[in-house]
Amino acid sequence: SCHVLDLNEPIIDHAEGQLFLNEAFKILMEEVLCKGTDAKQKVCRYEEPEVLAKILDLELREAGEPHEKLLQRVRDVATYSVKTCHPRFFNQQFSGVDYHSLAGRFLSESLNTNLFTYEVAPVFVLMENEVLRALRFLVGWTEGDGLFCPGGSTSNMFAMNLARYQLYPDVKTKGLWSLPQLVLFTSPESHYSVKKGAAFLGIGTDNVILVDVDDGGHMIPEDLEEKIKSAIAQGAVPFLVSCTSGTTVQGAFDPLDRIADVCEKHNLWMHVDAAWGGSVLFSKQHRHLMKGVERANSVAWNPHKMLTAGLQCSVLLLQDTTNLLKKCHSAHASYLFQQDKFYDVDLDIGDKSLQCSRKVDCLKLWLMWKAVGSSGLAERVNKAFSNVRYLTEKMKKTEGFKILNEPEFVNLCFWYIPPSLRGKELNEDYQDRLAKVAPVIKERMMRQGSMMVGYQPLGNKVNFFRVTVFSPLVSTKDLDFFLDEIERLGRDL
Amino acid sequence: SCHVLDLNEPIIDHAEGQLFLNEAFKILMEEVLCKGTDAKQKVCRYEEPEVLAKILDLELREAGEPHEKLLQRVRDVATYSVKTCHPRFFNQQFSGVDYHSLAGRFLSESLNTNLFTYEVAPVFVLMENEVLRALRFLVGWTEGDGLFCPGGSTSNMFAMNLARYQLYPDVKTKGLWSLPQLVLFTSPESHYSVKKGAAFLGIGTDNVILVDVDDGGHMIPEDLEEKIKSAIAQGAVPFLVSCTSGTTVQGAFDPLDRIADVCEKHNLWMHVDAAWGGSVLFSKQHRHLMKGVERANSVAWNPHKMLTAGLQCSVLLLQDTTNLLKKCHSAHASYLFQQDKFYDVDLDIGDKSLQCSRKVDCLKLWLMWKAVGSSGLAERVNKAFSNVRYLTEKMKKTEGFKILNEPEFVNLCFWYIPPSLRGKELNEDYQDRLAKVAPVIKERMMRQGSMMVGYQPLGNKVNFFRVTVFSPLVSTKDLDFFLDEIERLGRDL
Repeated sequence: SCHVLDLNEPIIDHAEGQLFLNEAFKILMEEVLCKGTDAKQKVCRYEEPEVLAKILDLELREAGEPHEKLLQRVRDVATYSVKTCHPRFFNQQFSGVDYHSLAGRFLSESLNTNLFTYEVAPVFVLMENEVLRALRFLVGWTEGDGLFCPGGSTSNMFAMNLARYQLYPDVKTKGLWSLPQLVLFTSPESHYSVKKGAAFLGIGTDNVILVDVDDGGHMIPEDLEEKIKSAIAQGAVPFLVSCTSGTTVQGAFDPLDRIADVCEKHNLWMHVDAAWGGSVLFSKQHRHLMKGVERANSVAWNPHKMLTAGLQCSVLLLQDTTNLLKKCHSAHASYLFQQDKFYDVDLDIGDKSLQCSRKVDCLKLWLMWKAVGSSGLAERVNKAFSNVRYLTEKMKKTEGFKILNEPEFVNLCFWYIPPSLRGKELNEDYQDRLAKVAPVIKERMMRQGSMMVGYQPLGNKVNFFRVTVFSPLVSTKDLDFFLDEIERLGRDL
Repeated sequence: SCHVLDLNEPIIDHAEGQLFLNEAFKILMEEVLCKGTDAKQKVCRYEEPEVLAKILDLELREAGEPHEKLLQRVRDVATYSVKTCHPRFFNQQFSGVDYHSLAGRFLSESLNTNLFTYEVAPVFVLMENEVLRALRFLVGWTEGDGLFCPGGSTSNMFAMNLARYQLYPDVKTKGLWSLPQLVLFTSPESHYSVKKGAAFLGIGTDNVILVDVDDGGHMIPEDLEEKIKSAIAQGAVPFLVSCTSGTTVQGAFDPLDRIADVCEKHNLWMHVDAAWGGSVLFSKQHRHLMKGVERANSVAWNPHKMLTAGLQCSVLLLQDTTNLLKKCHSAHASYLFQQDKFYDVDLDIGDKSLQCSRKVDCLKLWLMWKAVGSSGLAERVNKAFSNVRYLTEKMKKTEGFKILNEPEFVNLCFWYIPPSLRGKELNEDYQDRLAKVAPVIKERMMRQGSMMVGYQPLGNKVNFFRVTVFSPLVSTKDLDFFLDEIERLGRDL
């Protein structure tokens, strides 16, 4: 390059850069937010990986590219990405869009700061504190602690670390070799991050003891107690019960009050993974599902799921008032958490986390909450329940659909049984053939781009669909479409 | 609320929402990107926490707020936040702004997907793969593996977990109780996440053995070898050396080639924490600082630092080609990673991570890289070195400034010695008085909003400033200002 380095000028041209940002903003407005939320447009435009790679021309090269080509790249990324904001994206728990949250996310990205000190994030240190306070209040705590984390898995792992540290503070310096063998308890329908956490924290997945569930997927407190006793008899030390409020597949809520009785009796840390279900706490009508949550030690809750706050927005809430989080996680970096600052250094909250760089995830939730109020968020939760009730009733009346259980939450699990399989339940190959239905329908909907919904097996139940209905963009006509589309795609199977 | 739930319509009004987003975009363009990058404007507007809380009116209430009030809130957040994009923000390693990266971030936020399956993130699965390939190529690897992580601390912890798992795969299921006592090695100037990781992974901070450094902050390979032998003699099992390329305070690069010799000899996993320094690999002129990096097992590198890719943009790169990352981290969640999908399920990369929700962090780096090319990124790195050289030479010629060491990287560590302390080096209270200078100057610059730069003590060295110069928005006049401003704020002390 013949370009001479000129120290006197910045490398970046603001006018050019801002022009690009403006143009890119228009494209994303058009392609993602207008077309992407339009039921008449495709939810995805599936291409085989080799084809897509060719279209996108991903290779990174020595030379830069001109303005127009870069805008085309923005357009391509938008075109070939899945539109999770689309009213027919039922695939996962991050569908829909909230414009206030999105404005908060754009602002967070522009401000590009790190939530570790009051010095560089004065607004967000105070704001995170207020959002955590408001969420804790919904749990039933007037005091406590907490932290925004990069996802629910991290929240669950932090809770595990806190439970261990509270019982054996020496673990922080001496490691697990100085401790007796620890065991923790969860249900087989809990999120996989409990096992991942046990492995990562050096506890080992064999020391995650699975407590039996009933048909609906709820942990059975009597079995929990029995398994605790049995573990103790074998010389292990139980330290944690990880309950779930809103399991991933069935949407089951573990009976928290009865589990709390067991935890109290055996002096165990009670963690509630409410990543998915926590948002019911906004609703007077539905918060009973989490009755007893105020007796927990910690709660993980992802407003990026049901509240449409945008990935990532995930909190760990604690009842603790003894600064356990900081004691457990701190490393006192002297270049960051200087004690001779001119303001109250308790505002430098970064040492509570195991992250150093930590994104600002509170602004989007705060702005959305300010926009619609607690009442508006409650309304969204209530509407989600009503929507799933509507879909369930309709499904029950429609031939060829079989639900697994009455939905407790906004997950509806069902089989679509094509005409060729109806009445053949007793045939030897019925289960094998039924297991192949959902994957084929899924492939067809993705290739046509008409809809997206997930499927999975569970225990001895072969592949079934799980639809989660909660996006504030969904109306009954989308639910009518949902049923018709499954049938249209599957009736020849 | 008398609002009746209408199932037939979505709750969110697109026209209203998009209007708000448009207006918010204009505000952030004006307040953050125009004013915030203007040297004539303040870099921060410091308020005491109680005052700021009152201005922001953070409380979350039952009712929502009208359009105009919400726009005022956007404006308030922008006004009172620190402008990390400002040319006089020298406080941390995330200063400056890149408009292409920012456009990529806005697009990622709008698309709001999760980087775990090809199904929901086809573009980004392929794109992440290409970005990782290109970064690995700079390390010197034509094959390998890797992952974007939520910050360098997580990358370092994942590397620690992999090193442990490779040596003792049983740890995943049985936990640390089945293993001998492990120890790892790092320098006292390495990032604090190494200790945090050891605590979190159940290894314990006492098992982090600190290797001596020379005056410039480089790990001494001879001391490393001695400490490895001594640990073995005491019955411990060394498993990892965590080196640093670009230490946080001094910007030192550990001698990788000589450390690699020691690691090879003792069969230890060699991790390089290049979160800060990794970007020198773009520069033909400066990449020699990391000579030997290709011999490492893993490298952590944060393009959100020197490359201005925006928080968070952090990768863990691996030389491994045996799928170690997936073997170590996977949990095979059947609802997500179904094996009967219609496309190649190796594209479902989510099980490589310990996160479930994982943000798309590759697009912003990819788009910026496409915009300026590898040559443009190399130019930024080269310019940063030139800028810090300019500042260093000027500082050496200016009375009252004393640098700690010749900068090896773009960190410049120095004391400002006010006139009242000059020539008093032998006075008994000299160090105590010098230690108080930086905090006062820092307080003054923040209250006036003229500049931000960090300070800290290190070992037996009392508080000194550390300025990092790398933002593509910085010109020599900002560096001239930097010196003048320190002097202006401190000369009466």
